[in-house]
Amino acid sequence: MLDNNPIGIFDSGLGGLTVMKEVISQLPNENIVYFGDTARVPYGTRSHETIKKYALQDANFLLKNDVKVIVAACGTVSAVASGEFKDYKVPYFEMITPAAIAAVKATKTNKIGVIGTPATIKSCEHKHRILELLPAAQIFANACPLFVPLVEEGITDSNNFVLNEIAKKYLLPLKEQNIDTLILGCTHYPILSDVISKIMGNKITLINPGEELAFSLKNYLTDNDLCAENKTPKHNFFVSDMTVSFQKTARFLLDENINELNAKQVDINKI
Amino acid sequence: MLDNNPIGIFDSGLGGLTVMKEVISQLPNENIVYFGDTARVPYGTRSHETIKKYALQDANFLLKNDVKVIVAACGTVSAVASGEFKDYKVPYFEMITPAAIAAVKATKTNKIGVIGTPATIKSCEHKHRILELLPAAQIFANACPLFVPLVEEGITDSNNFVLNEIAKKYLLPLKEQNIDTLILGCTHYPILSDVISKIMGNKITLINPGEELAFSLKNYLTDNDLCAENKTPKHNFFVSDMTVSFQKTARFLLDENINELNAKQVDINKI
Repeated sequence: MLDNNPIGIFDSGLGGLTVMKEVISQLPNENIVYFGDTARVPYGTRSHETIKKYALQDANFLLKNDVKVIVAACGTVSAVASGEFKDYKVPYFEMITPAAIAAVKATKTNKIGVIGTPATIKSCEHKHRILELLPAAQIFANACPLFVPLVEEGITDSNNFVLNEIAKKYLLPLKEQNIDTLILGCTHYPILSDVISKIMGNKITLINPGEELAFSLKNYLTDNDLCAENKTPKHNFFVSDMTVSFQKTARFLLDENINELNAKQVDINKI
Repeated sequence: MLDNNPIGIFDSGLGGLTVMKEVISQLPNENIVYFGDTARVPYGTRSHETIKKYALQDANFLLKNDVKVIVAACGTVSAVASGEFKDYKVPYFEMITPAAIAAVKATKTNKIGVIGTPATIKSCEHKHRILELLPAAQIFANACPLFVPLVEEGITDSNNFVLNEIAKKYLLPLKEQNIDTLILGCTHYPILSDVISKIMGNKITLINPGEELAFSLKNYLTDNDLCAENKTPKHNFFVSDMTVSFQKTARFLLDENINELNAKQVDINKI
């Protein structure tokens, strides 16, 4: 049985495009609907109550587009709002569990690091999930609030002095704990893989939750005979605000050779 | 004639508290109602259409609190959305005009610099206002998108190496133009006065729009016999989200010796 309905992906903004990129790479024949809440980004510094409300509004918009599954391509939503999606109308995928599984597989010393937004780190969700899988694990976590603004400013070069200094401040306390595996718990962070590797050293395994999520989504669709087989799949983009830098940031994060991303604006409060 | 109704102040978030501080300093007997749109901050990277919509919602909330005037204590709203407040129900004050007047008074070389968020700088509103007052002026502007995240991270020490490097990147192109006056066109920037002065040199006059706005508001209320004479004035705070870091950031920006700021949360979409 095939299911040609689209995969729905939402994020607080455009960071989820790095996750979409991984989904496209592993599931090239799927239609995808992406919603980025650019009128209310970022979520990572808001209260849990507000993040939950926003996440449900975002997912409900995707439901109206007949999606067969929903992907929370946002570290903060995954960490804070996943409980809202128990018994949801369609299967829900988030970024914490696949990352925790991959980290537990990768670690040899049982010392695992996590970086993310303040809300993600404060939730301790990665820690809880890892300890369920590997009770002997030791988890060391640090919030990196300046990483997203730096990426959105285009400051991503591993030789950039300012980026290096800020990254050292966040990462050296984790390195000192001798972790051997590090979860990049925010969708913007894979863009900073080079500088993170440079500081942590190349013996440390970096876990990209977007890649792990795409892998687990592919398994789910295959196991349940729900894959699509579109030869020319459609990728539709919706945002709650058409910001000044939308095209530039979207192309940069999606890493696609496109001139312009066709995105439609929707009023998320009227869904 | 006295008017004991409160002054209404709104901002995209908490940065407007630096403006409130100036208003309290110059008008110590006034009741004040402050609204910070912490559920949707920041405005500076959003589209003009969205900024206008948000600003009107914020102001309409203040109107329901019987304010006698409305202050847009937000550089971005002042630059982008002030046109929405023509013929508004109560007098409206913004941050561009008082800053432009002060800059024109201060400059001797007619070379004036402006720094602000991307939306503020893109609007060119400071430039237009200055040229109306001083057609011979030359205006040099630069957006400083990392300044707000740095302040909110508490990185404000003028000896901080990372802050110095980022500030040099933004400010040295203005210094090279030999400006003698610099408008700090975002409410967070007065917190960075020390590092800005250090890089620009102490011969350059820094204009704090919050201080200038408070001065022009005081003149207006005095001239129109609308001052209040409360011996124990009330300062009421409302936010659209009670964020994790609210208390810390609010105390830091308001610079008041208080243990806790009593703020109420409101749903800005249901006003």
